[in-house]
Amino acid sequence: MPLVRIDLSSTRPPAMRRAIADGVHRALVDAIGIPAEDRFQIVTPHAPDELIFDPNHLDVAREDIVYVQITLVTGRRRELKLDLYRRIAANLTEVGVRAGDVFVTLTENALDGWSAGDGQAQLVDLQSVAGTENQQAT
Amino acid sequence: MPLVRIDLSSTRPPAMRRAIADGVHRALVDAIGIPAEDRFQIVTPHAPDELIFDPNHLDVAREDIVYVQITLVTGRRRELKLDLYRRIAANLTEVGVRAGDVFVTLTENALDGWSAGDGQAQLVDLQSVAGTENQQAT
Amino acid sequence: MPLVRIDLSSTRPPAMRRAIADGVHRALVDAIGIPAEDRFQIVTPHAPDELIFDPNHLDVAREDIVYVQITLVTGRRRELKLDLYRRIAANLTEVGVRAGDVFVTLTENALDGWSAGDGQAQLVDLQSVAGTENQQAT
Repeated sequence: MPLVRIDLSSTRPPAMRRAIADGVHRALVDAIGIPAEDRFQIVTPHAPDELIFDPNHLDVAREDIVYVQITLVTGRRRELKLDLYRRIAANLTEVGVRAGDVFVTLTENALDGWSAGDGQAQLVDLQSVAGTENQQAT
Repeated sequence: MPLVRIDLSSTRPPAMRRAIADGVHRALVDAIGIPAEDRFQIVTPHAPDELIFDPNHLDVAREDIVYVQITLVTGRRRELKLDLYRRIAANLTEVGVRAGDVFVTLTENALDGWSAGDGQAQLVDLQSVAGTENQQAT
Repeated sequence: MPLVRIDLSSTRPPAMRRAIADGVHRALVDAIGIPAEDRFQIVTPHAPDELIFDPNHLDVAREDIVYVQITLVTGRRRELKLDLYRRIAANLTEVGVRAGDVFVTLTENALDGWSAGDGQAQLVDLQSVAGTENQQAT
């Protein structure tokens, strides 16, 4: 169960924003193995001066950054995360974002940190989450 | 000490947005036991196409999602969290949100992850937080 | 590698918003020891009724809150964090923000929770981050 925040420039047209959101989601499905329907995303367009970034920190060339902040249930192996970053960048490149402009942050939280609606904590009942080894105790 | 982000559709009128924020806060007070005055919330209205969600993942019916993202000091027992989700959904239902549209994410952080103003880390000084067993070491 | 979200009132003029962002960044550089070019910030202006806060919880006087939410690689000692809060408040006071209005939340994540562009997980390769003792295992 991921929640994805995407903050990008309002100069990117709505169709591109949607394609970016699609690309991030597809990467999560392909890298982490979440179900395709496990999609929850918040897109926030910003005036260009609201997105502040260094144009070449860590030898990455940035011009028009796309911030992707993912909250995800804990437990995925490092290889899956690294694959996720590669896939997000690759998918976004396909829709016209420079690879250097794809900035991703991943924060992990607990299995009991989620309610997907109806006041229930669905993951606690499931006790098993795609991409993790198996059940998680708390 | 929670910080609450609420992202919802701008088609919900301002009075309803406020009632939603009130309902989330009341649930935190009643479930977790934080003081009523421990209220810090950021409400962000969005154009409908900026809030992306699956309409029935995990058998929940969603039409007009309200994202509630809570950052909270670590240490509350699972039962309190589950009660929190039930209360948020119940309170929001009272003000006209469908229970299925209430999506909650909870991320816990450290006692020394908070400054409530004046450059101080108030929780470190208090060393005790409502709803946790007792003092937390670090 | 921090990601900083700053949510503030849109009544604060753009030059002041920028000065606030500058002040938060300078505090991170001075307190934590990150490189000056390690700057990634998202500023979101809000209508005043979207920022909800208690005017005096924990004996802090608040009138026009500035929410600063920092995501940072885990591992900094508490003294560095406390120094960070003091410096943020001091720097923001210099540009016209009341010290009581500076609300900071810090959430720590893993070394492999970052991609600064190009689909790479740069911190995993570096295996060492400013302000932490030394290498981090996972």
